[in-house]
Amino acid sequence: MSPEPWVRTLSVSVPVPTSSDKRSDAVRVRDSLSRMGFDPVEFPLPILRKLPGALRQSGFSLPVALTTAQHGYVLSEIGKPEVYGIAIDIGSSNIECSLIAMDSGRKLMTSKGQNPQVSCATDVLGRAQHAMTGQAEKLSDLLIQGVNDLIGHVCRESGVATDDVLLVMLCGNTLMTHFFLRLDVSNIPVRPHVPAATGPLFTTAAEVGLAVNHAATVYVFPNVGSYVGGDVISGLLCADITSMEQPILFIDAGTNVEVAIGCREWIMLGAGAAGPALEDGVAEIGRQASSGTICGVRQGSSGELIYDIKDGTTPSGICASGMIDLIAALFAGGIINRAGKLDEAAEGVSWHDGEICYRIGSGEDGTLYLREREISSFLRSKAALFAFLYIFVRSLGLSFRDIPKMYVAGALGCGINLESAVSIGMLPDLPREKFVPLGNAALCGAEKLLLDRSLAETISGICEKITYREMSEERDFLQILQGGLFLPHTEPDILNG
Amino acid sequence: MSPEPWVRTLSVSVPVPTSSDKRSDAVRVRDSLSRMGFDPVEFPLPILRKLPGALRQSGFSLPVALTTAQHGYVLSEIGKPEVYGIAIDIGSSNIECSLIAMDSGRKLMTSKGQNPQVSCATDVLGRAQHAMTGQAEKLSDLLIQGVNDLIGHVCRESGVATDDVLLVMLCGNTLMTHFFLRLDVSNIPVRPHVPAATGPLFTTAAEVGLAVNHAATVYVFPNVGSYVGGDVISGLLCADITSMEQPILFIDAGTNVEVAIGCREWIMLGAGAAGPALEDGVAEIGRQASSGTICGVRQGSSGELIYDIKDGTTPSGICASGMIDLIAALFAGGIINRAGKLDEAAEGVSWHDGEICYRIGSGEDGTLYLREREISSFLRSKAALFAFLYIFVRSLGLSFRDIPKMYVAGALGCGINLESAVSIGMLPDLPREKFVPLGNAALCGAEKLLLDRSLAETISGICEKITYREMSEERDFLQILQGGLFLPHTEPDILNG
Repeated sequence: MSPEPWVRTLSVSVPVPTSSDKRSDAVRVRDSLSRMGFDPVEFPLPILRKLPGALRQSGFSLPVALTTAQHGYVLSEIGKPEVYGIAIDIGSSNIECSLIAMDSGRKLMTSKGQNPQVSCATDVLGRAQHAMTGQAEKLSDLLIQGVNDLIGHVCRESGVATDDVLLVMLCGNTLMTHFFLRLDVSNIPVRPHVPAATGPLFTTAAEVGLAVNHAATVYVFPNVGSYVGGDVISGLLCADITSMEQPILFIDAGTNVEVAIGCREWIMLGAGAAGPALEDGVAEIGRQASSGTICGVRQGSSGELIYDIKDGTTPSGICASGMIDLIAALFAGGIINRAGKLDEAAEGVSWHDGEICYRIGSGEDGTLYLREREISSFLRSKAALFAFLYIFVRSLGLSFRDIPKMYVAGALGCGINLESAVSIGMLPDLPREKFVPLGNAALCGAEKLLLDRSLAETISGICEKITYREMSEERDFLQILQGGLFLPHTEPDILNG
Repeated sequence: MSPEPWVRTLSVSVPVPTSSDKRSDAVRVRDSLSRMGFDPVEFPLPILRKLPGALRQSGFSLPVALTTAQHGYVLSEIGKPEVYGIAIDIGSSNIECSLIAMDSGRKLMTSKGQNPQVSCATDVLGRAQHAMTGQAEKLSDLLIQGVNDLIGHVCRESGVATDDVLLVMLCGNTLMTHFFLRLDVSNIPVRPHVPAATGPLFTTAAEVGLAVNHAATVYVFPNVGSYVGGDVISGLLCADITSMEQPILFIDAGTNVEVAIGCREWIMLGAGAAGPALEDGVAEIGRQASSGTICGVRQGSSGELIYDIKDGTTPSGICASGMIDLIAALFAGGIINRAGKLDEAAEGVSWHDGEICYRIGSGEDGTLYLREREISSFLRSKAALFAFLYIFVRSLGLSFRDIPKMYVAGALGCGINLESAVSIGMLPDLPREKFVPLGNAALCGAEKLLLDRSLAETISGICEKITYREMSEERDFLQILQGGLFLPHTEPDILNG
């Protein structure tokens, strides 16, 4: 099936009014659209307001944008030959968005910014508590401002007027989309964790305060409860899970970890918190990948560490993939032991500000210090991640060996070194060809939807198939987690699962 | 067929969330509505925002308002056990509205106010010219403010919160509804007189700036071109023209006069301007009917004039029906001659401010003067009205005698004395039982629609059946008009048609 567009741009030519053809401007355009096969077409009031002027300015031959609606079409814009769409993933820590030309489907730019709610509280539970004590509006304001800043940035950088953006596909976890939509979050943190709405929600930019064309269609991905947000649904859409004959494993790891196994027939899903280590927040030197961040680390021929610094030579921080490499390299080089403790005698290990640290860099400008307790934090996150994954797969009566493909999304999916991740016991030791890195799968799903309206049906299908499992209820979860605090694990056999 | 409601109020009870029933609040309510037979139901974002709080405050048993939509229902309000509707007719001179309780269909109040655009220009052409020279926004602001003032007034007087008004049915001539909707009017006054839109238009109170519940559905009656506005369509709905087996005659006379003849099969319609004499604007002493206005005049046993003064004894002005009576009485008493000239020797005729006048009242406080030239203005309007009517009926090959019923709407339809109107040659001399006074038929049509959504279909049917005739093109129009400047007419036979 060919993709079904959300919006079409076309040119409508209409007869010039005469004394024997006194049809109103709207009827004139509607009749022409009908002859072109578009019927019925709804004319929103803001379009009707500018139609007479636009028709006459264009000599009665007008470029229009037609958005497909549930029943027929909506004349969503006039006078603009090109229209754009935005895909957005709102994460607890970061917001990421893509700008896409709707005619060609070409992606013009992707950009990432911090979720400004972090200034209120880094963890989502803290934000929910703030919301319940009168700060809900402020948190929504911050989030929407952050989204608008990012949209403004990608449009400016791409030379696109925000007013030409007619479609926005947005996903995020349930709390984030509730904040974005200014829905009441107060029942999410308390048992039985009931969201205000499940969605999907179709709304307009004007109604949610997005700084694009005020009539733009805004689609917010559905959630399947407080713990299964639209970001996961979008990620599963990206992985095309409902077209799989054999069950695939999907993991999206950021501050929260979502794990799914599923196929055409069914989807089992679990979620938990792994902490910020898998994003960029575990260490003082943790940074989102940008100029100057260490994105990779490898051992040189004489055992020295070689840092892969993005766009430069002086490191300003380290991103998640760099951190995974660094931990793997420190472990391989014996600089940290299995428990993550630094060897004080090793080169590069020193005391700094009263704490034992590993020194990155030459000691001149650009010296970074990774503290031993930051290494411990990282190990807690990687242990939680693996424990979730292991327990989840096992709880379905499966082992890692049974899984033909493992889709890795989120912070883990963005250019990490699989060997490093496996060597520290973060991911199972499967044949490497079984791993499919997806990058930001949530954003990818929103991008896919932007280009094919029929996927809205696929999304409903995903939601219906999902069964949610409480993972922390498994009896030996804590034991597996504690084993993962060591490198690669106290019971390395389970990595081969 | 029983009427189809636009909106229903009902109470929805939903199960309290538990650990085994974690459905979102919206899904919870949707499932219950579905079991009650309402499916699908759309939940607008503003409702979703307050749903969690309202559900818990009500102990999970919530009054809701369900509006019928094209496909299914919209959850248009929650927490309000009663909802109200407003019918509005926007005339060039006056705005009139009714407030109706939607559950019972009971009309709580009707009220009338001046169209504040009159302060810019009394005639509509003048307003269109103002609009074309940069004053469009101001004219729309004035009108919308006037409508909101009137709505605020009827709600306040009836003890109804404007926020409980969920439906507004609005009609007016094409220029007025364009101003109301802030549509471009600049092509209406110039040939070929093309309106921006024909409608009908469904919009929301928020979008048009009406001061009722911001989510209220606002329906604006369709027009059939620049000269056949939604007020006429609404009047024809009031007269139930499309259910007539035999053609009826319909006349709506205000500043503009619309005449229609039609039935189930067809509707012929003509329109023209009669001037303000048929409203309350012909004379300096002309007033809208209210306390102190003269609403009727009759001759006493000894030939003296007895004034019927509304709620009092001291006259402050005279309304349209009083004026028709007065002219008839002055003519019957020989105080004016056939040409409308005052007899200077007659009692009550005197010079005042340099003009010859007829004095109403005792000479003490409350004395009113009707100037001779105001009588002439009145005769011009009544002559135009009759000429339109006569020429129109004749142009269809009919005579007045062929018409089984004549529906009289507008200023003429509000309690005028038929004998007076006939005696001065304003209306044809038909058997009196053929006349059906409708009052403000445009407002009445909007009220009918408020109580039965299925009439929206009837309205479409009326629009499709209408054929518009240019009346002033008839060759002897001017001759008939000039004859009507005399009382009752220079050719009285034509009054018997």
